[in-house]
Amino acid sequence: DAPLSLIAGPCALESRTHALEMAGALKEIAARLGVGLVFKTSYDKANRTSLSSARGIGLEEALPIFAEIRESLGLPVLTDVHAPEQCDRAAEAVDILQIPAFLCRQTDLLVAAARTGRVVNVKKGQFLAPWDMQHVAGKVLGAGNANILLTERGVSFGYNTLISDMRALPIMAQTGCPVIFDATHSVQQPGGQGGSSGGQREFVAVLARAAVAVGVAGLFIETHDDPDNAPSDGPNMVPLDQFEGLIAELMEIDEVVKARRAG
Amino acid sequence: DAPLSLIAGPCALESRTHALEMAGALKEIAARLGVGLVFKTSYDKANRTSLSSARGIGLEEALPIFAEIRESLGLPVLTDVHAPEQCDRAAEAVDILQIPAFLCRQTDLLVAAARTGRVVNVKKGQFLAPWDMQHVAGKVLGAGNANILLTERGVSFGYNTLISDMRALPIMAQTGCPVIFDATHSVQQPGGQGGSSGGQREFVAVLARAAVAVGVAGLFIETHDDPDNAPSDGPNMVPLDQFEGLIAELMEIDEVVKARRAG
Amino acid sequence: DAPLSLIAGPCALESRTHALEMAGALKEIAARLGVGLVFKTSYDKANRTSLSSARGIGLEEALPIFAEIRESLGLPVLTDVHAPEQCDRAAEAVDILQIPAFLCRQTDLLVAAARTGRVVNVKKGQFLAPWDMQHVAGKVLGAGNANILLTERGVSFGYNTLISDMRALPIMAQTGCPVIFDATHSVQQPGGQGGSSGGQREFVAVLARAAVAVGVAGLFIETHDDPDNAPSDGPNMVPLDQFEGLIAELMEIDEVVKARRAG
Amino acid sequence: DAPLSLIAGPCALESRTHALEMAGALKEIAARLGVGLVFKTSYDKANRTSLSSARGIGLEEALPIFAEIRESLGLPVLTDVHAPEQCDRAAEAVDILQIPAFLCRQTDLLVAAARTGRVVNVKKGQFLAPWDMQHVAGKVLGAGNANILLTERGVSFGYNTLISDMRALPIMAQTGCPVIFDATHSVQQPGGQGGSSGGQREFVAVLARAAVAVGVAGLFIETHDDPDNAPSDGPNMVPLDQFEGLIAELMEIDEVVKARRAG
Repeated sequence: DAPLSLIAGPCALESRTHALEMAGALKEIAARLGVGLVFKTSYDKANRTSLSSARGIGLEEALPIFAEIRESLGLPVLTDVHAPEQCDRAAEAVDILQIPAFLCRQTDLLVAAARTGRVVNVKKGQFLAPWDMQHVAGKVLGAGNANILLTERGVSFGYNTLISDMRALPIMAQTGCPVIFDATHSVQQPGGQGGSSGGQREFVAVLARAAVAVGVAGLFIETHDDPDNAPSDGPNMVPLDQFEGLIAELMEIDEVVKARRAG
Repeated sequence: DAPLSLIAGPCALESRTHALEMAGALKEIAARLGVGLVFKTSYDKANRTSLSSARGIGLEEALPIFAEIRESLGLPVLTDVHAPEQCDRAAEAVDILQIPAFLCRQTDLLVAAARTGRVVNVKKGQFLAPWDMQHVAGKVLGAGNANILLTERGVSFGYNTLISDMRALPIMAQTGCPVIFDATHSVQQPGGQGGSSGGQREFVAVLARAAVAVGVAGLFIETHDDPDNAPSDGPNMVPLDQFEGLIAELMEIDEVVKARRAG
Repeated sequence: DAPLSLIAGPCALESRTHALEMAGALKEIAARLGVGLVFKTSYDKANRTSLSSARGIGLEEALPIFAEIRESLGLPVLTDVHAPEQCDRAAEAVDILQIPAFLCRQTDLLVAAARTGRVVNVKKGQFLAPWDMQHVAGKVLGAGNANILLTERGVSFGYNTLISDMRALPIMAQTGCPVIFDATHSVQQPGGQGGSSGGQREFVAVLARAAVAVGVAGLFIETHDDPDNAPSDGPNMVPLDQFEGLIAELMEIDEVVKARRAG
Repeated sequence: DAPLSLIAGPCALESRTHALEMAGALKEIAARLGVGLVFKTSYDKANRTSLSSARGIGLEEALPIFAEIRESLGLPVLTDVHAPEQCDRAAEAVDILQIPAFLCRQTDLLVAAARTGRVVNVKKGQFLAPWDMQHVAGKVLGAGNANILLTERGVSFGYNTLISDMRALPIMAQTGCPVIFDATHSVQQPGGQGGSSGGQREFVAVLARAAVAVGVAGLFIETHDDPDNAPSDGPNMVPLDQFEGLIAELMEIDEVVKARRAG
């Protein structure tokens, strides 16, 4: 069992400057902690609650920024894709293509992402049982790509609420794919603020500790230097200045748990 | 309150011959009962559980069949679209564009469908609260199209199970959009057969009676002359030879309930 | 299929005068409508959210009032019991002993109620699947009493919310026991007001219509002449002056549905 | 933050010999690990799925066995009570009175348990939100007893399934009461085997690791030397020969997490 890795970054790619600053800051933290880091950011928020919510800078404007982060900082980059025709283009500049949870059963998107040869990270739908992710992974594998990550981000529990089933982590691991726990979207409250989604930032650390103790390959955590003014997912992003302390604790738990497994 | 209308047909467009036979049979039933009918069928099953499941004949092959049903039988046609670029093409041959439940928050798809000027029927996501559909309808409306139907088709309840919240019908009606109850997919058991979804056909009539008694503009019911050998949704389609009896009872309940409202 | 019956009354037995007034008013309504009526009221609210909430007048003070309602008005009476030792005493003065939902698996209570020989109405626990009620009914039957009613009153759906699964009605009917739909507690929001439970009175008629259209032996509806000042369940009781109109509509739906079944 | 404590033992008190053997074995394990131990066992299974399921040896027969375990082994003992009149009697021989989850809102039982002066451990109902446990604790406190433990054991999630919300642990801790995680009943599948409850023993360690990483005062874990032949809860009890290894790992995680908090 390899030690814990991180997928981290701001929810939305707000600007070249902001993305580079955030990536730089996260690179330093990861170096100090000795943890593997993938930089995550989105060029388009394609399924906002309301039409009036901000969408993002778009794929074409984002590509050179992704490339610059990879080249200047040496960080692998992850972004999410929303349509089959975006996959090839995005794959030129990023290392991991992410399939959003709502789209996790869209065969054409999964196949198109798979065919790029990039790692494909599929988020488990809020409406899906963990054992059903084997069929989702099967679509990527069937398209010739075995580099698959599966990410847990909560399951529907009543209205406007998600709940994290920690049993989902070992169940999804039975596919043989590395399993990631998304501690940011697991504390989202979909539609919980009327025209936008709410979140419970105070539970990010709680659920992340739980997932790491259960055993995961990696954590997905969105972070921001000013989350309360971020264009999306502000209520559930971790403030950047709390990020290092959080990860340090999670690494300690990871070490205990994986030493046991290895021992 | 107008009397109950129907959206009905086989889940998948299997062939020109089968579609015309089904549409013809349904037209006769609707004429005997005096009920408005929209013929529904899908050219692509874009989110099957498994990669190996049948997809469908595709949009280009379906378009002339849709046109023939409209022209030769005079029936309005509904089909579902899965990507923005399909909307204009599908709108040439059908009257209602349907947005699948998993895709009900994909802004680009909603806007593209809206811009065709056709009626847009949005299925409520299995992960969505009924009051959140106002924002979904707002995306279509904000794109300049006020011809919106909202369809209830169950909400996630534990794993591999949906439940129908009858309160959702009046809540969604507060948007001013006609509300449809999909009695076929509400009894689906997502992923319930391992590599495919199961269903509980025996509860279609149960839930349809409930929804009509609550009060809806229309019902969405898939039907097939041989559901146990249908390529998709067989476990939850109503056999064609039981369809007329079912609808006759539902129309009686509808009449009682709407006479009260009018009275 | 016999026509719809009613179990109705104020949640709590507030005083002799109030109970007799309510029972008298309900008897007149039932006579006008030609519907069977059981008068329901509780002498003890044994599981209030908070210690400070009102409990009720108690069994000993209630018994003569129950007896007076039966004798002076000729109405059968239902009340709920909370401990085995209350069953014999309550059975002296009432026709139906009701087992509260939280207590529906307490074997000693079920057996004690069964042994009185009175009809036993068991409310399905908010935590129970409908098919599990056969085992609950089996405990009453195994104690020698076949006069069993099973009542649906919603199932847990996320936090502080219940949802009504209309499939539960035919599933529970497979036991052979008459099935009652409790439209009052199905719209309860447990703990929804912090120190007490909330409710959605506006959905009582919605869910009652749905249940009657599905097909039930009876309805359980709490009503009060001044629900907003009632000591318990005020938010979900129907105002007495709306009761007759509501029941008249439900009887019409019941007639349509049961004529079909009989036909 | 005190180190993790344990509440452990076989689900049912099967016989004096078996109880003493189990208590002795657990005492030795706890001594080797240096962990605090309360011995748990039940004299009555009062809410079995079916009437034909075994009930237990009863309170009167259990009392001298509880006393013997306390005296001969020096272990504190916990048992569950089901009716107010059992509380005083049970309190003579045990240290902690436990309120079963289904009964967690029964005011009379909570008050009677409180008045014994013994520690009261209340299990959170499968139908209750974690923030509603403050009112449950308030009933015990209002009866003059501040020695309250609150135990999480899963919440209803669809039918026949529980799910563990790790956010419930810090939410319940806001009451100031020590919070226990019951890893045995959290993996129960209520009614999951038709006439009895099933369970997923393989997830006991998974959920226990998660809960300890989140931070709890103690764990409740049932264990048995031959769980597959135990009279109740066999499917979710940990085999005794795996108990020590499990607890050792959990103590390591607990140490890391609580050192952080203290540091």
